[in-house]
Amino acid sequence: MTITTDPKTGRFEASFPAENPSGEFRRSANHFDARVTADGSEGWPVEAGRYRLVVSRACPWASRGLIVRRLLGLEPALSVAVADPIQDDKSWRFTLDPGDRDPVLGIKYLAEAYHAADPHYMGGISVPAIVDIPSKRLVSNDYPRITLDFSTEWTSLHRPGAPDLYPERLRDEIDAVNVGVFADVNAAVYQAGFATKQAAYEDAYTRLFAMLDVLSERLENQRYLVGDTITEADIRLFTTLVRFDPVYHGHFKCNRNKLAEMPVLWAYARDLFQTPGFGDTVDFDHIKRHYHAVHEQVNPTRIVPLGPDLSGWATPHHREQLGGRPFGDGTPPGPPPEEERIGETDGATS
Amino acid sequence: MTITTDPKTGRFEASFPAENPSGEFRRSANHFDARVTADGSEGWPVEAGRYRLVVSRACPWASRGLIVRRLLGLEPALSVAVADPIQDDKSWRFTLDPGDRDPVLGIKYLAEAYHAADPHYMGGISVPAIVDIPSKRLVSNDYPRITLDFSTEWTSLHRPGAPDLYPERLRDEIDAVNVGVFADVNAAVYQAGFATKQAAYEDAYTRLFAMLDVLSERLENQRYLVGDTITEADIRLFTTLVRFDPVYHGHFKCNRNKLAEMPVLWAYARDLFQTPGFGDTVDFDHIKRHYHAVHEQVNPTRIVPLGPDLSGWATPHHREQLGGRPFGDGTPPGPPPEEERIGETDGATS
Repeated sequence: MTITTDPKTGRFEASFPAENPSGEFRRSANHFDARVTADGSEGWPVEAGRYRLVVSRACPWASRGLIVRRLLGLEPALSVAVADPIQDDKSWRFTLDPGDRDPVLGIKYLAEAYHAADPHYMGGISVPAIVDIPSKRLVSNDYPRITLDFSTEWTSLHRPGAPDLYPERLRDEIDAVNVGVFADVNAAVYQAGFATKQAAYEDAYTRLFAMLDVLSERLENQRYLVGDTITEADIRLFTTLVRFDPVYHGHFKCNRNKLAEMPVLWAYARDLFQTPGFGDTVDFDHIKRHYHAVHEQVNPTRIVPLGPDLSGWATPHHREQLGGRPFGDGTPPGPPPEEERIGETDGATS
Repeated sequence: MTITTDPKTGRFEASFPAENPSGEFRRSANHFDARVTADGSEGWPVEAGRYRLVVSRACPWASRGLIVRRLLGLEPALSVAVADPIQDDKSWRFTLDPGDRDPVLGIKYLAEAYHAADPHYMGGISVPAIVDIPSKRLVSNDYPRITLDFSTEWTSLHRPGAPDLYPERLRDEIDAVNVGVFADVNAAVYQAGFATKQAAYEDAYTRLFAMLDVLSERLENQRYLVGDTITEADIRLFTTLVRFDPVYHGHFKCNRNKLAEMPVLWAYARDLFQTPGFGDTVDFDHIKRHYHAVHEQVNPTRIVPLGPDLSGWATPHHREQLGGRPFGDGTPPGPPPEEERIGETDGATS
């Protein structure tokens, strides 16, 4: 199973466009876009303990949700199911759990929640997914909306000191940055890696590095992308950057430079990585195994590279010298819940 | 077509060991190992204009010959045929030449010279190859011997000021270094890249980086590998190092670090690259296109990465501060013959 993208909607779903004549990697539309809201106007009210967030720690789109959930302190209200990083032909599965079943939903495959919501659904099975625990039905796999709703609709369940990741006065700027980062970073790495023709690959590569240069310049004297605090924009860029050297640089041929060779972005990414709520959601083992083992059309041997050396992530970044207030008027989150700590539940991240 | 190796002989030949149960990449024996000698004792006397050296500029084994020929000034005595970096199912071919024929030998495929020497030959077709021009017969594809014979048997045709690349008093040390570099660098990158099982890959990767660390330490305060001048040992290491970031790091999953992230080896490689006879033989375009387009079992899309940024090769290396006499009592070679200049004949090297 692989992911495709629809250029219009910006949403990713499954299926590989091998027969796409232009050789370009394309997105197809999401199917499930109900919203969980404070007033329950779409039928799904915000409620502690009612929903389960299904993720893969390998997936950059799902990892946005993991970070926002951590920063806002939603862990007690919204539990998480972590899928095996290696899908099989029925897609994401709960083979990391006892009996190969998610202990809360009781299902073996995420597809079961999709089919509970729509028995005739034939599309791809993607994470992140919000599942209604009582009915075991998928509510939403609309990842760009999910994190924004965490910030704006789930406020009654935020921890004390939760930061404002989508401040009203900065939304236009955040949205504008997100559009560029989506097209030329988040999606471009996939478009480069899944391209089946040289021209499609070169187009994606060129856009990617042009945008990374723009972002480097923007971040040279400014600690975060928008304003002086961490926002949704930083989260969306981070989940691609943290996968850059382990996966996108080699596996997806995004190899003008490593992230570690782009000083501003590398310091920026380390700054975020070392901020509570970011690095503690990252499982390099899941990331590396997922991409290299699943994309047989890119890596037929399914061999997982031993590199890169990841020790640099812990080195000083000196970005605090730029000022900025990471959490604004809020505070950093505490440590992750015991059972969610990487390395204790999932083995070493090397 | 791909290359296999025999662990005993250290020689590379064609055929891909897909069915090798251990998933290890193996070498098979060379077939043609006649020597061109000063005294002609093996039937092939050294003689100006008699032989043609057939190479691919993509190939690290053939590139040793190109460098040694340049350093010793053998160009007027031994002409060169450059094969297309992309083989077809009949292997190396002269599709860069007018009419798709080597203008001196008049053949379209290197295989013709192999079959002229042995009509029943069924093995792989490899470069470098020394071909007898009058008979159009292959004399030798025994690459480790070819360069040593250039140094020791072809002396009557050396240019004035040619360096001694295999000085008698240092031969034991050079040979010992070459054994380690062959096993754990030259061959290990192929063993990592062609491995079909995780354990075989990890073994090669581990040996490779352990040896690169040993070499980094050796070269930290010493400009060249053996003695204080350039020797055969440096040439054999260089042809792997120069391919490291463009090919082996990504395509062969040798990704603990880039060469550019290993300061000593990176400076050492730049020092050699900037020495006449080294960098002027390197065609990054041929290198990148060959590996990525030919190894479909590793790179099914055959897309050639646009990266890496190669501008670093021209930056100062400061290795001259370590002393050393690159050419010993000799002198650097002049510029390459007009028709052999990279970029003038073969297009940009980016």
